[in-house]
Amino acid sequence: MVSRKTIDIEWGDCDPAQIVHFPRYFAYFDACTTALFKKAGLSKQKMLKTYHIAGIPLVDVRASFMAPSRFSDTVTVESEITEWRRSSFCVRHRLFNKNVLAVECFETRVWAVHSALDEERIESQPVPQEVIMKFSRGRNLSQVRKNARRKRP
Amino acid sequence: MVSRKTIDIEWGDCDPAQIVHFPRYFAYFDACTTALFKKAGLSKQKMLKTYHIAGIPLVDVRASFMAPSRFSDTVTVESEITEWRRSSFCVRHRLFNKNVLAVECFETRVWAVHSALDEERIESQPVPQEVIMKFSRGRNLSQVRKNARRKRP
Amino acid sequence: MVSRKTIDIEWGDCDPAQIVHFPRYFAYFDACTTALFKKAGLSKQKMLKTYHIAGIPLVDVRASFMAPSRFSDTVTVESEITEWRRSSFCVRHRLFNKNVLAVECFETRVWAVHSALDEERIESQPVPQEVIMKFSRGRNLSQVRKNARRKRP
Amino acid sequence: MVSRKTIDIEWGDCDPAQIVHFPRYFAYFDACTTALFKKAGLSKQKMLKTYHIAGIPLVDVRASFMAPSRFSDTVTVESEITEWRRSSFCVRHRLFNKNVLAVECFETRVWAVHSALDEERIESQPVPQEVIMKFSRGRNLSQVRKNARRKRP
Repeated sequence: MVSRKTIDIEWGDCDPAQIVHFPRYFAYFDACTTALFKKAGLSKQKMLKTYHIAGIPLVDVRASFMAPSRFSDTVTVESEITEWRRSSFCVRHRLFNKNVLAVECFETRVWAVHSALDEERIESQPVPQEVIMKFSRGRNLSQVRKNARRKRP
Repeated sequence: MVSRKTIDIEWGDCDPAQIVHFPRYFAYFDACTTALFKKAGLSKQKMLKTYHIAGIPLVDVRASFMAPSRFSDTVTVESEITEWRRSSFCVRHRLFNKNVLAVECFETRVWAVHSALDEERIESQPVPQEVIMKFSRGRNLSQVRKNARRKRP
Repeated sequence: MVSRKTIDIEWGDCDPAQIVHFPRYFAYFDACTTALFKKAGLSKQKMLKTYHIAGIPLVDVRASFMAPSRFSDTVTVESEITEWRRSSFCVRHRLFNKNVLAVECFETRVWAVHSALDEERIESQPVPQEVIMKFSRGRNLSQVRKNARRKRP
Repeated sequence: MVSRKTIDIEWGDCDPAQIVHFPRYFAYFDACTTALFKKAGLSKQKMLKTYHIAGIPLVDVRASFMAPSRFSDTVTVESEITEWRRSSFCVRHRLFNKNVLAVECFETRVWAVHSALDEERIESQPVPQEVIMKFSRGRNLSQVRKNARRKRP
């Protein structure tokens, strides 16, 4: 499952060099991960309520910036899960500007709950199989895991 | 040369999970790179005027998030150049929260000028040796390059 | 002319109280003003190139927050010019969440150019009549000004 | 009680017109209100825990932008409570750049708790007198209220 999100680059996303200030790309990608889960039937609001999680925070991220984007540009981001691990998963985002791959980003996120011992602490938990299954269409779980692994960057 | 910057985590930097929303870390780190150059005698404003550059945009970044931070926390970021290449350089940021390494980030940035042929385009250029020298103290350039390489992550 | 923009409230737009952090509303509204001009045929990029302006910065803004919005909410913003003055103009934004007026914002912006004497300075200039005319449809300028004045908040 | 906060204008706070993008000012001012309460002995974290509030969200804000600020500028913001009402209060921020008043902002905020009936809803509550007293020094409450009213914008 690949989610596609169209983003208008705004004036306020750009810096004095006239190009997108790079932290904004991560805000875009965070919204793209949200959109990917929504496409799988899991809006952020619903996901938090159904699974009593604190969120899906990042433990690792890397990005390559191949070409700059500017205000008034409209870009498209393609997002997909590339791997399901026990309590974490990997998301790849590819941002295209006029069909050119401009930014590529790899996120590793954890399925995180508030600790039972200390409400302030956050700890990882196995990703529910039904969540993983929502990203597969008519395939069984072992196939999903296998395919995801193959695509692994 | 290591630059240290103290940052108060603000309410608006945190998300509904009560922790810093990760794109904000990159805004912190961008400010830390600015502070590192300022410590070397190069304020952003001065750097742009003196060397007629468009900026020092990122081509690559990666970060690991080891522990979350929360509003009302005060954190410290240690930043240093870990490598000088021909027209790019690497910066390492380590964010400490109560003496615990909470986030580590590696930026690769380019020394970028507006293209002479197309004012809209940005292209890399060799980093001036006098810029590199500002980060060394009483050492010659080859030593600086060597040491930086040794620290390379 | 009224421009309507649909905005998905993102996780990263919300604060630890689970509601949109108010500075984000102003980023939304800034994008809505951009969209309003684009609807009139003036993309930001084109506007800057055609009229050699530095931008349309704010001199005054006020907003009332009647109801909070949350991540996973989809809101609609209606934006329109309420008054054309000599070198400034007023924009009203009304943000609706499930048909309830949640935020109302009034911006006063200036038509700003880089000063001829000092490239660093920004100064206001009369709004070109052809810009104002783009917001009217088959009406003459005096009618446009008159109507806008009537709607004045 | 007046709180003074020094802010370094960052590259990422500025837009393609080379000046601070106005929504960022509101993020500054939000941090200044936090600093003002902290000076009175109420860090945001402590305030939320002690009084079981959801926060102090805005119901109304207005700002005037008299002069632009740029990256590498260091500005100072003076913040003070100008009025205590029953369940709301007013804060005035004045941002100075090289001793020139560049931005003035008036916030009206409410003392907000999560509704007992619906955890998702937020409702206002009277500001505790001990909170108001923390902003006075050796004066009684009626004087504090009276003085605040006098300063009312």
